[in-house]
This record gives sequence, C-alpha cells and structure tokens, in this order.
Amino acid sequence: MTKWVYTFGNASAEGGAVMRNLLGGKGANLAEMSSLGLPVPPGFSITTEVCTYYSKHGDTYPEDMKPQADEAMAGIEKIIGSKFGDPDNALLVSIRSGARASMPGMMDTVLNLGLNDETVIGLAKASGDERFTYDSYRRFIQMYGNVVLGLGSDLFEDILDTHKHDHGHTMDIDLIGEDWKAVAGKYLVMVEKELGEPFPQDPQEQLWGAIGAVFSSWMNKRAITYRKLHDIPEEWGTAVNVQAMVFGNMGDDCATGVCFTRNPATGENAYYGEFLPNAQGEDVVAGIRTPQPLTIAEKKITGSDLPSMEETLPKLYDQLVSVRAKLERHYKDMQDMEFTVQKNKLWMLQTRTGKRTAKASFKIAVDMHDEGLIDKAEAVRRVDPAQLDQLLHPTLDPKAERTVLAKGLPASPGAASGKVVFNADDAEAWVGNGEKVILVRIETSPEDIGGMHVAEGILTTRGGMTSHAAVVARGMGTPCVSGAGDLRVDYTAKTLTAGNVVIKEGDIITIDGSSGEVMEGLIPTIQPEMSGDFARLMEWVDEFRTMGVRANADTPADAKMAREFGAEGIGLVRTEHMFFDPQRIIHMREVIVAKDETQRRAAVDKLLPYQRRDFVDLFAIMDGLPVTIRLLDPPLHEFLPHTEEGMAEVAKAAGTDVAAVKARAAQLHELNPMLGHRGCRLGITYPEIYEMQARAIFEAAAAVVKAGKSVKPEVMIPLVSLKKEFEILKEAVEKMAAEVMKAEQVKFDYLVGTMIELPSAALRAGEIAKTAQFFSFGTNDLTQTTFGLSRDDAGPFIQIYLDKGIMESDPFITIEQDSVGELVRIGADRGRQTRPDIKIGICGEHGGDPATVHFCQKVGLDYVSCSPYRVPIARLAAAQAALGVEAETNA
Amino acid sequence: MTKWVYTFGNASAEGGAVMRNLLGGKGANLAEMSSLGLPVPPGFSITTEVCTYYSKHGDTYPEDMKPQADEAMAGIEKIIGSKFGDPDNALLVSIRSGARASMPGMMDTVLNLGLNDETVIGLAKASGDERFTYDSYRRFIQMYGNVVLGLGSDLFEDILDTHKHDHGHTMDIDLIGEDWKAVAGKYLVMVEKELGEPFPQDPQEQLWGAIGAVFSSWMNKRAITYRKLHDIPEEWGTAVNVQAMVFGNMGDDCATGVCFTRNPATGENAYYGEFLPNAQGEDVVAGIRTPQPLTIAEKKITGSDLPSMEETLPKLYDQLVSVRAKLERHYKDMQDMEFTVQKNKLWMLQTRTGKRTAKASFKIAVDMHDEGLIDKAEAVRRVDPAQLDQLLHPTLDPKAERTVLAKGLPASPGAASGKVVFNADDAEAWVGNGEKVILVRIETSPEDIGGMHVAEGILTTRGGMTSHAAVVARGMGTPCVSGAGDLRVDYTAKTLTAGNVVIKEGDIITIDGSSGEVMEGLIPTIQPEMSGDFARLMEWVDEFRTMGVRANADTPADAKMAREFGAEGIGLVRTEHMFFDPQRIIHMREVIVAKDETQRRAAVDKLLPYQRRDFVDLFAIMDGLPVTIRLLDPPLHEFLPHTEEGMAEVAKAAGTDVAAVKARAAQLHELNPMLGHRGCRLGITYPEIYEMQARAIFEAAAAVVKAGKSVKPEVMIPLVSLKKEFEILKEAVEKMAAEVMKAEQVKFDYLVGTMIELPSAALRAGEIAKTAQFFSFGTNDLTQTTFGLSRDDAGPFIQIYLDKGIMESDPFITIEQDSVGELVRIGADRGRQTRPDIKIGICGEHGGDPATVHFCQKVGLDYVSCSPYRVPIARLAAAQAALGVEAETNA
Repeated sequence: MTKWVYTFGNASAEGGAVMRNLLGGKGANLAEMSSLGLPVPPGFSITTEVCTYYSKHGDTYPEDMKPQADEAMAGIEKIIGSKFGDPDNALLVSIRSGARASMPGMMDTVLNLGLNDETVIGLAKASGDERFTYDSYRRFIQMYGNVVLGLGSDLFEDILDTHKHDHGHTMDIDLIGEDWKAVAGKYLVMVEKELGEPFPQDPQEQLWGAIGAVFSSWMNKRAITYRKLHDIPEEWGTAVNVQAMVFGNMGDDCATGVCFTRNPATGENAYYGEFLPNAQGEDVVAGIRTPQPLTIAEKKITGSDLPSMEETLPKLYDQLVSVRAKLERHYKDMQDMEFTVQKNKLWMLQTRTGKRTAKASFKIAVDMHDEGLIDKAEAVRRVDPAQLDQLLHPTLDPKAERTVLAKGLPASPGAASGKVVFNADDAEAWVGNGEKVILVRIETSPEDIGGMHVAEGILTTRGGMTSHAAVVARGMGTPCVSGAGDLRVDYTAKTLTAGNVVIKEGDIITIDGSSGEVMEGLIPTIQPEMSGDFARLMEWVDEFRTMGVRANADTPADAKMAREFGAEGIGLVRTEHMFFDPQRIIHMREVIVAKDETQRRAAVDKLLPYQRRDFVDLFAIMDGLPVTIRLLDPPLHEFLPHTEEGMAEVAKAAGTDVAAVKARAAQLHELNPMLGHRGCRLGITYPEIYEMQARAIFEAAAAVVKAGKSVKPEVMIPLVSLKKEFEILKEAVEKMAAEVMKAEQVKFDYLVGTMIELPSAALRAGEIAKTAQFFSFGTNDLTQTTFGLSRDDAGPFIQIYLDKGIMESDPFITIEQDSVGELVRIGADRGRQTRPDIKIGICGEHGGDPATVHFCQKVGLDYVSCSPYRVPIARLAAAQAALGVEAETNA
Repeated sequence: MTKWVYTFGNASAEGGAVMRNLLGGKGANLAEMSSLGLPVPPGFSITTEVCTYYSKHGDTYPEDMKPQADEAMAGIEKIIGSKFGDPDNALLVSIRSGARASMPGMMDTVLNLGLNDETVIGLAKASGDERFTYDSYRRFIQMYGNVVLGLGSDLFEDILDTHKHDHGHTMDIDLIGEDWKAVAGKYLVMVEKELGEPFPQDPQEQLWGAIGAVFSSWMNKRAITYRKLHDIPEEWGTAVNVQAMVFGNMGDDCATGVCFTRNPATGENAYYGEFLPNAQGEDVVAGIRTPQPLTIAEKKITGSDLPSMEETLPKLYDQLVSVRAKLERHYKDMQDMEFTVQKNKLWMLQTRTGKRTAKASFKIAVDMHDEGLIDKAEAVRRVDPAQLDQLLHPTLDPKAERTVLAKGLPASPGAASGKVVFNADDAEAWVGNGEKVILVRIETSPEDIGGMHVAEGILTTRGGMTSHAAVVARGMGTPCVSGAGDLRVDYTAKTLTAGNVVIKEGDIITIDGSSGEVMEGLIPTIQPEMSGDFARLMEWVDEFRTMGVRANADTPADAKMAREFGAEGIGLVRTEHMFFDPQRIIHMREVIVAKDETQRRAAVDKLLPYQRRDFVDLFAIMDGLPVTIRLLDPPLHEFLPHTEEGMAEVAKAAGTDVAAVKARAAQLHELNPMLGHRGCRLGITYPEIYEMQARAIFEAAAAVVKAGKSVKPEVMIPLVSLKKEFEILKEAVEKMAAEVMKAEQVKFDYLVGTMIELPSAALRAGEIAKTAQFFSFGTNDLTQTTFGLSRDDAGPFIQIYLDKGIMESDPFITIEQDSVGELVRIGADRGRQTRPDIKIGICGEHGGDPATVHFCQKVGLDYVSCSPYRVPIARLAAAQAALGVEAETNA
C-alpha cells in the first residue's frame, strides 16, 4: 500500500527535512520541527505523488488515499482536543500548497476551514470575541469562494464596500462583530445566487474542495509560467498541507511573536525578538500596534517602556528559551522563528535560517566555531560572499535623517559625500585645494579618469551597472550611482536638477552606491572594520581555497590596497589608464597625430620614462608576486580631445595645425570601436608602441632586480584572435627582453601570454598555446562578442530580458555559463591539451562575482583576478567553491 | 640504389607529371612534355630528396648521386651534339630550382652555365653574333658571381655604369660586342680582386657550385619567410633542374614565340600566337620589337603587314601545328606554349594551361564538349566561377582611350558612366529628370539607399571592399569603386578633386568597378551576353549541383533578376530596405519618436499597407518558390534623419517638437550599434513592429493564394542568441498567422526560423532548433563577432593583416574556415541533432563567394543565398563543389 499521507504534531512526525521531494518544503519542515519535540500545531501532508496522480487521472485521487487522510484528521482532533465540524468545539484547519522548490504566491491557500453557520457560533462563544470570529468566517467564505468556487474577489469587495458605505464606515477597523456577521451573511446569499446552490456547510465537503483546488492550482497559468521561467519541471507536483489553526488573539493568555536565536544585526549571542499579547501574527507585521521586546535585556538596550515577554509571560518565555537552545543545537545556525500562544499554550509555527547583516554573519560563524557548534569549513561556508561588499565600504549611518533627491543604480558600493563638480578638471583642481568632491557627469569617458580618481564619489545620469563610470568606479572602490535618469545635468549652468530642487556647483550631496540613492547635504557614515571576526574568518578562508586570487590594479595605491586585501599578485594592469595623466596624454596624442613612423617613435619615446616609473612602483610593491601587464588595448581615438581647445594644444605639441588634428580624428573615427582597430591590432600596425611598453616593463624589472627585490613580469597581449598575431608580437617582446637584459646585465624570468577574449581565440586556443605561456580570459569582451551585445548599449533592454526570463542574470555581472562558459571551457581545454602546464586565469569584472568564481573553480582555472575591493569576496567565494558550496547567481 | 637523378629529352623521360613531389613542378612538367614526344631541350632533375639530404648532412650530397648526374649530363651532350666545356662546340646549361609548390622568385637561377674564356670564343663563332655571346657571358659572370659566389650586384652594376659613362653610352642597347667583351673582362678582374681567387673557368666546378647554391637557396631567409607565410613545410625541399640552353637569336634560321592552342580572348578554335625571328624569348615580352602573327588567318584579322610564321617558316609552323594537336589531345585543355627555333630546330620550352577570358572559358568548355574531348562534368569543372563576374556586367571597351583620375577598390564589378552628383536626393531628382548619374560620397549610409538604387554607379572616397557602399552596390549589381582615398570630396562646393583636376557636379565620369579605376568623361562599354555557350553550360551546371541556390532580393526588380539568373527562391528579404522610401520613412520615424505604445502602434499601422504590397509583389514573382523574410534588423537610430530640417519634418509628422526628436536621437545613440539594440531585441522590446511585419507577410500570402498562386513564406528572426528570444517571437508570429488565416479564410504553409549569426546562437543551436524550423547562417555578423572585428572599421588594418600573412584572405569575402567555420559546423550539427530535417542555408555576401560555396557543400548546407548578380557564380561553384573540384580562396 502506498503511503499518501504523512502526519506531524505532538512532538513526532512521520516525515522529516530529508523528504522534501515527497512532502514539499513546508511539509518537510513542519515534520522536522515536530520530530524535534517542538510544539507544532498538528497536521498532515498529502504527498506530491498525489498531485501527479490527480492531474493524470482527471482530477481524482488514489482509492486508498482518503482513508489515510481521515485517519490523520482524527489524529489532529485527538491532539487538539476538538473535533472537525463539532458545533461547540470545532477544529479549524488551514490548507496550504507546498512544492519542492519555493514558488512564492503562485498557488492557493485556504484558512479557517471548518467554519460554518453552526461552528462559528461555538467559536464565538469559546473565543469570547464575536468580531474576531465573524471576521474569520467572512474571510473564510471569501477565500473559499474565490479559490475553490471560482468567484471573483470583486463580488465580495462590492458587498463589503456597500456595507461600509451604508453604515458610515470607512476603515475595516471601524467594523464591529455585528458588521462582520452581517457581511458574512450577505456573502452566503451572494454565493448561492451566483452558483445556484448554497455555500457548502459540510466541513468534509469544504476540506476536499480545498484540497482539490490546491492540487489544481499546480496547473494554473501563473504557476505554469513561473515554472517555465524558473525551469521547475511540471512532474515535481505540489504537496498539500492540512494543519490545525491556532489563534493568538483569543484573550490575554494569548500572544504572537517572532524571534531570532542571535541578534541578526550584530550577531551577538543573545535572544532577540518581539511579541504582541492578544494578537494575530499579521498584527506584528502590520505595524498598527507597537510590538514589545522579548527580553528584559533587550528592553534596556532599546529603552522601551513596554513590558517584555520575559516579564509578562515568564513561563512561556522559559519554554521559548528552551526552544531556542534546541533549534540552534539542531540546525547549528541562527534561526528565525514564529510562534503563537493560544490560551497559555505555545505553538511554534515556523523556523528557518535567519537573515543577518554581513557583520552578524562573520560574528555568528566565528562564535559558533568557538562554541564548538561548527568546524572551520562550516564557518567558511556560512558567510555569503555577496554580502561582504557591505563590510568593505563605508555605509550611511542608518539613524541619520536624509532627503532623497533621486534614485539611480547601485553601481559601486559605499557611501560618500562631497561638493558637486561637473567635470574632471574641476574635480582635480578642487581636490588640489583640499576639497572633497562628488563628480557629477551625464556619463563618463576615459578622459575623466583623473577626476574620477580624486573624487569621493561619482554620479551619472546615464548608463547602466556596467557603464564606464560603474566599471571604473568599482575598480577603484569609489562609490558610484549611475543612470540616475530623473536628475538633469546642465553643464553650462553647472546645475543638477531633481524635480524642483536645484543643486549648484559646490553644494554638498551624498550618494549611496549600495542603494543608488542620491541625497541632499552631508549624511554621516559608518566606517568599515576589517579586524576581529572578519580577519579570523578570512584566514580560515585561505586554508580551504585552491584557486589563486589576484587583483586588477593600475596604480601603486591600487596595488597596495590589493595586497592589504590579500591579493596574490596583479592579474591585470591596464596600461592605457596610465596615459590619461595630463602630463602624459599630450605625448600620447602626439603619437596619434604623428605624420610618419619617425615622428611617432619620437613621441612614443617621451612616454617611456613615465611607463617605466609606473612599472618600477608596481613591481616594488608586489615584490616577487606575479604582475600581469596588458599592452595598450583601446582604440587610439579614445585618447584624442573632443574640444577645439584640446585640439589646438595637440596641434601645437605635434607641430601641426588644428585642421590636421581634426582630419586625423575623423580618420580614426569608428562605427563600432569595440570591434575596431584596438588591442593587438595596434601592436601589429604600430609596432613602436608595444616595443616602448615592453622596454618600459623590462627596464623597470631590471631596476627592481638591481635594487634587490624579485620580479615576475607577465606580458599580456590583448584581443588576439589568430595564432600569427600572437607569434609576431611575442617575438617582438622577447627581442626587447633580450636587448634590455643584455644592456642592463641582469637576468629575470618573465612570461608572454594572451587574453582569450574573442570566440576565435577560444576556438583556436590549442594553436595559440603553442607559443602563449599563459591565458587570461577577458570574459567581458568574450561576453560582448559571444552574444553580439555591447555592454555600453545593452542598458535599454537588458532589464526587459531579465524580467521576461530570457536571461537568468546580467551576463556582464555573472558569467553566462552556457555559451560564454562553453567557450571558456573550450579555450581552457584546448590550451591545456597543447601546453599542459599553461597558467590560466580570468581578469575583469566577472572575477569578483561569487557565482563566476564557482564557475572558474569548476572549469579548473588557476586564478581569478578582480578589483582590489572585491579580492576578499573572491577569496571567500573561491574557498566555498573548493568546499563544494552551491553558488547562487546574481539574478 | 636510390635514384637521385631523372633525365628527360629526346622524346622520352624517366619522370612525369605525377612525380611532382619528387621532381618539383618544373621538372615534372618538362618530363611530361618530353614523354609526349615533344622536342624539349634535354636535361635532368636532381630530386627534392637530395635537397633534404643536402641540408641535413652539412651541404654534402649522397655518395652515389654524382655518378648519376654525370651520366645524365652525357645523355644531354649526346642529344644536343655538343659537349659540356668543349671550346668549339660547348654545351651550355641552365640551373633552376623547382619546388613542389610554386615559390615565384624565392630561389636562385643560373643561366648560360658552361661559358668561360675559351667556350665563349667558340660560341661567338658558332652564333656569328659577338654582341649576343659576350652579353651572355657577362650575364653569366654576374649571375654566378651573385648567386654562387655571394658578390653584391652593385659591384657589377658599378663596372657597367662606369664603362657606359666612359664610352658615352646611356642605354644597354647602345653597347656593341666589343663593349660587352670589355665589361666581361672587367667583371672577371673584379671577382678575382674581391675573392682573392679567379672566377671558376672549369665548367664542372661551375656546375656543382650552381647546384649547391640552388639547394642552399631553399634555406635562404626570403624562402623561409615565404614558406612560413604560405604554410609550406621545410621538409618538402626543392629539386634542381639542369637543362641544355637553346637560343633563338643565332640567325635567321632562329626564332622564338608564344602561342595558344585556341584564342584566349574569344575561345575560338584557331591557332593563335606571336613570334619574332632571330630573337630571344625576352624580346617578345620586352616590346622593343613588334611581334609577328603566327598564322595567315590571324594576320588578316589583325591587319598586320608583317609576315606570319606560317609564311616565313612553313616547315616549323607545320611542326608547331602538330604540337598543338598533340598537346590538346593530351591535356584536353587549351594550352599556352613557349617555343624557340634554334637553327631550324624547334624546341618546346614550356606548356601550361592557358589563361583566358570568361567568355573564352565558356566557349572552350562547350566546344571541347561538342568535339568529344571532355564530358559535361569536365566542362563544368573548367570554368572559373570567380571569372564569371566579368561576364555578368558591362565592361569598358578595351580599345577606348581613357584618362584615369584615381584608383580605388574594385568594390562592385561593372563599368558605368554618368553625371556626378554628391547626395542621394540629388541623384533621385536628376534621374527623375532623365539623367544618368554617378553618386559620389565620402561614404554612404542606409539613408542613401534611394539614391544608390537609381545611380548608374557609386564612388566613395572612404571604406573598404565591405563598406556599406560596397555591400549594397554588390547586392544591387551596381558598379562601385570604394575607398578612392586620393580623391577629395567637398560637399559644400560640390566638387571632386583629383590632384589638380576638379570635377564639378554634373560633369561626366566613368568608373570601372572591376578594376577600381575612376576616369574623366564617358568611356564606351561592352554589354554582356548571356545566351549561347553561357546558357548551355549553366544548364549542365544544374545537372551536377546538389545544393540549392537562392538570391537575396528586397524589391520586385531584384526578384525578377534573381529568377532570370536561376535562383530557386529568395534566401533573404531585408525588410528594413523597404522603409527607406521617402513616403515610408516618415512613418518609420514616427514609430521611433512615439511617446508610448499606443502612438507607436498607430504609426506602425501606417506602414502595414506598404509592407503588404511589397510582399504581395515578391510572392507573386516567386510563385511558389520559398521566400525568406527577415524581420526588422537594424537599430532604430539608423532610420532617423541627421539634419535639422529632417528632424523638423519628423517632429511635425509625430506631433512633437524638434527638441524631443533630438532627445530621442540622443537616447538612441549607441557606442557600438553592431552590438546594440537591434534584431530580435527590437522584436522583444517593441513587439508591435514584428507583429505588423508578420501581419503584412501573412495578409500578402493570403492575397496571393486567393489570386491562384502558391506561396512559401519563411519568416526569419534575426540576431537570436538565446532559445527564449526565439520562442517568444515565434509564438507571436504563429499567433498572427492563425489570426490572418482565420480572418481571410485561407490556409497555407509557412515556416518560422532564425538567423544563426552570433557565436552564442551557433553554440546553442541544439536548443534553438527545438522550435526553429530553419536556420540561415548570417556569416557576416558571425565573422564580426567571432573575430571581434567590425566590417566597417577593419579597413585600416585588414590589408596589413593580409600582407603579413596573419590572415589568408579577407574574412568578409571568403568565409574563414577555422573559427567561423567551426561555429558553422557546430551550429549545423547541433541543429540537425535536434531536428534532423531542419533546412539550413547561408545568406549574405559570403553566399556568392566560390570558396565559401565549397565550404557550405562540405558542411552539408541545403542552400546558399547571394545577391542576384552572383547567383550564376554560386550555381557554378556549387556544381564544382559537388564534383569535388578544389576551391581556391580569394586571397
């Protein structure tokens, strides 16, 4: 005989947490709590197998199922001491769906089932609260009428509105018991009129009607769509849970509340919660009444003048204390519980792992380890890497008052305040005068780098999470709000307008890059703490991690920060960022407008000392750790000025006229710069640029070696798509290395490798690895080309794609594992087939995304590299990936 | 004993054409001719195996090789009747390299070997021409000195210059025998001075010095680089050919000439050639003397007053006639031969398959079939598809005088003349007034389509072979010269400047899209003929072809042309081209600036009747053949005007103001439009546009069916990268089809499929094929994304890539078979795995490229689709691919 029904209650259960597939999430969890001996309102789960049977057999049940359910119902009656349908002492039950995977709000629920014209009278007497009783009855009629009988909600709402209007009521709270009684009566009349037969008064008929409706709701349109979007197979089915109702609002010996086994804000190991006497669960949430503290200690801390549960219901509080101990011992994690007290009897309605702040997360994990509850590996598993971002940046003081002007995208986390400036030059000038500034732009371009570097925060009115501003800001760890479309920037008037508020240059604003909010004035912030629990746990992290973690760093400041955050090298130095300094960019522009190779070589040579100094600093800071330097990548036109004035300056420096500069700019203009004359294509067509960069790298390395430190330069050629491109450029780099080592009379090891950032490079990785000594996946460009999708232009539709479920997550935040992922796998596999010991990493934005880190671990990469601020996140994610924790995507 | 040496001559040979790997191309070919009984100057080949041995064994030879060579040399002496080194009757030989693959000019050659201070006197006597003899001697000294002894050419040039200067000569032709004798003497003195030992006088020493030098030249730097670039393995080696010298300039019983077994210009089955009595081969080429006709018939046709060989050397002419017959019978193809008559003896120096015009190609193939020489399959194999282009377009009359102003890229074949106009509107207006125009632009954009359509030809000063102008022009079959960078366009002054020539608006120019030349004034053209031999052969073509050939056609004119050229359906209708008509574009612009969906739907609806009419026409013309219609593809901003005036017009039509239009344009601006908001992304975000297009397609189909014709609409969704994109849009198309069929009360079959034009789509083809009913590879976009290479922006470096051998051919002309090819294979394989009967084709520029057609045959595609003018090329290439002909890439 198949077992179709599993009971729980009275400190025991036939099921448990491991039977999730059969009992659904809710049923399994209720059974688990009951087995632990906790006072769970008794009930039973009808299995998901019945759901499958039901829809395959024309909405009928297996023959032997009903007797099992009847028996289970009798069990509930016995435990509760009331009887289903008994006019004087009626058992009321709830009917709820419960699938294997959570499908919030997709399926139907019926509460207070068992009420009818007779039992409602008994309940009114027993509860002594006619208002509560008839309110419950009319709710039941509406829910049942809607869910089971298929009547529109508006039919019920109309009756209620008419009644309120006729009796001069405006709010539901104005209605007394008599009113609800009358409304319930009118509901019954309406139902009979609509359906041609009376509302079912027989509790058994009610019960099976509701169970059938819940099973049917598995196949309703909403649920089907939801499953389609979330790839939930139809054959999973849902379970149905029938459970005794309990009420916390039947008098002063009743109460309801929520509590956490530890403080979810601080992580402190102290009971923490709120309750309301004589109230329903929803009253706590609704905020109509002020909840009271659970404990005396909490009362003191919060300065509440309301009595705590510890004082008013000491016996029940004691029971709750033992529940707390039992649950933490069992689940070995902080729990978030709901309870109800009905006539001095405690009922546990739910327990689940409690949500917590990043700070609490660390404290709880470390404390539980110290308490012997969990081991180090488990402690490492417990912290959500995505949350870590909170910890690494200043945050707004939650108590501070604020006037929000607008909301944009939370592009780079952290809070910052400063005076508004509208261009990068002003930012540099003002900061030079000791001011703190927020750089406000419609959008930023590589020319703004200087100003972005010195600004406390960056605000743009256009562009998405992966716009230039957002990417650069995240790289720098500078707070940034992007795409705040409701704000209007007027560069000429130097104003920022939000509705009718006008912010002028020099006015102070605050931005919160974690929430996207833009606020007037200075809002106080709280600085992050990175010692204590954080530091201890991060040490454990490195014990489990098998993948390396490097940082993307272009400046000495970045490099120092990277080491502080635990980076094991630099995975990406973007050399082009070094050319935007005002002293240097003029030479770069001379390079671009040069008439011939001779002129170009002369201009390039002026950049050599700067580049060399940059690399000396980076090598010295990283002292023996690998430093991967990418040769020039962006198209040349990115370095040209846009203003007449700027062009005049370039013309003068290059000994030519403005017309010639303009002509050159027009010649360099590209329709699709992302797919244009950039990366190694520059190296092939203007060999002198890469030669200069290689010389700077090797001369810097020689200088650092002579100063007694060690170096590991890794020269990286960008945008390779063909074997011969790489061969030609590698040869040039090697020639330069030999030349420098000979001239400087030193020896050091170095590698020459390439980015794999184009589909062609991934497909030809086997050939390319014949000469390339390392690969670094540039998953940003690889995503752009694999999907034919420009990061900068995807803004207007990517959210629509996410909403419609066409994409599961933003492919520029979390690597897309099917297509881009296949190319990464192909690239890594073919590369290793040719050169088994080839070092393979990933650099760019994705490297700091936990789900991507998990992917990299699966593919077997040697390291990930990300912005310095994300290094701890990547370390943690890598440790969890090594420990086999399942990753969540950043949908 | 290994055979190292293979002899030929005296109507026999030890080798033959099949021994190419061992004897090299030249040696194998000489042996073949000799075996045929033709009078080839005797000689021998030292095998490529000796080359390998030589470089592996420190420049030494296998022990048993020299005796074989000595024996072979004795054989030559016997045949020629002279002796190597005999002062009175010296045998002279040439030493030439000959590798398996042709490596033109990469390795060394020595002629006239065997001359020394003694034999030169004998030769002077025998030839009676001292000038010729000492000129030959000094040439030998220089060649040998340079190639074998390693002396710089300048050393020899200096002596010659000094001699000329001292004797008051300016040209080599001014020098007489005495001069050359003196120069040769000075050469010998110089060589001895430079090397400290005399120039080798011993012919045996000369011989082995030269053979060693040729073998060594296999490893010279030029040859190594050439092999690297052309992927020729080093281990192939070169053979060395030693062959008796013959001279056509030893008197009036000597001659030299070239001849073709059929007329290479017309294909006519008549002997055709030129000769010069008492001359060297190079004299025919040098153009110093006017060559004489070979035959009397030819003399009559050309009106030459010089005597023909048929008249002056009738016996030798008769011998040549029998050579002609023998060679055609043997090679079964038209031959191009070189011959020399030395003292009344005919020597054949070379025969090879003769180059011919496209027209001759068809005539020769068809004639040879009719003569029973070859079968139909061989006739089809014989015509080069790449040449066909010549036949399908008007060509410049080769006899016409011309003044070339500049040369650009031969972007779209054919010649055209017309009055110069500088913008598309003027083009339309002038053509409206009955003028013929050439549209001259710096570059074209989609807005210019109207003007491009009416122009006789298009000339741009910027952009490559695959620029907008080039692609569109080829699609239309309109002659186009692109990227003529030496011309300067001034839109304001309406002038086109070439150096100091200024062409004004209205002046007539002629462009030749096959050569890239731009000429002043009207040059007469010759119209193509497509009947006769062409028509017969194209019929045979279709008997062998297994792949379908369709055309890309957007207009009724294109569609008619496509059918005339034998297209079996339309593989690509670009619906966006239909929106650029002035009457329509205004509605399209209303769509774009619409404030909300309601406004947008209203504007879209205005386009419906136009689109429907377009499709009615296409379906009617194609009557039952499949018509693949691609829904809107380009980003919306491509449809917006760029001028203030245009914006005002749009504002008026849309009931808004210019500021709003500008704001919308700014909002739509994209950094990388190729990777932006286009293709199916528009379909997802603005469903009403695709709905209108689907409605227009199905209503048109219904109308045509009601009119008694049959239809096969294939609706194609562009730029799909994810399964769900396609699913959503297919559902919408199907809904519309059902709606229209119900409303119109007709039934017809249709398909819904997708472009595979992004790497992601190729990788996920298996999933996409679950719902997609056909695939069409968009190899243009697939190439752009696979290589991260914008077709429009690749101009500045793609030529450099080709020159450096980084790419073998322009990947936008011939499909790149490794990376892009792998994705096509993956896409086709995975698609067929899911849906074995899925129809798979290719559309876009590549579809008309012969090498790409071969690739498509190999991958097993069902059809290719290309511009109407290339349909015959594709048909021919497909037939050849089916016949297993090897394809050549368009390097």
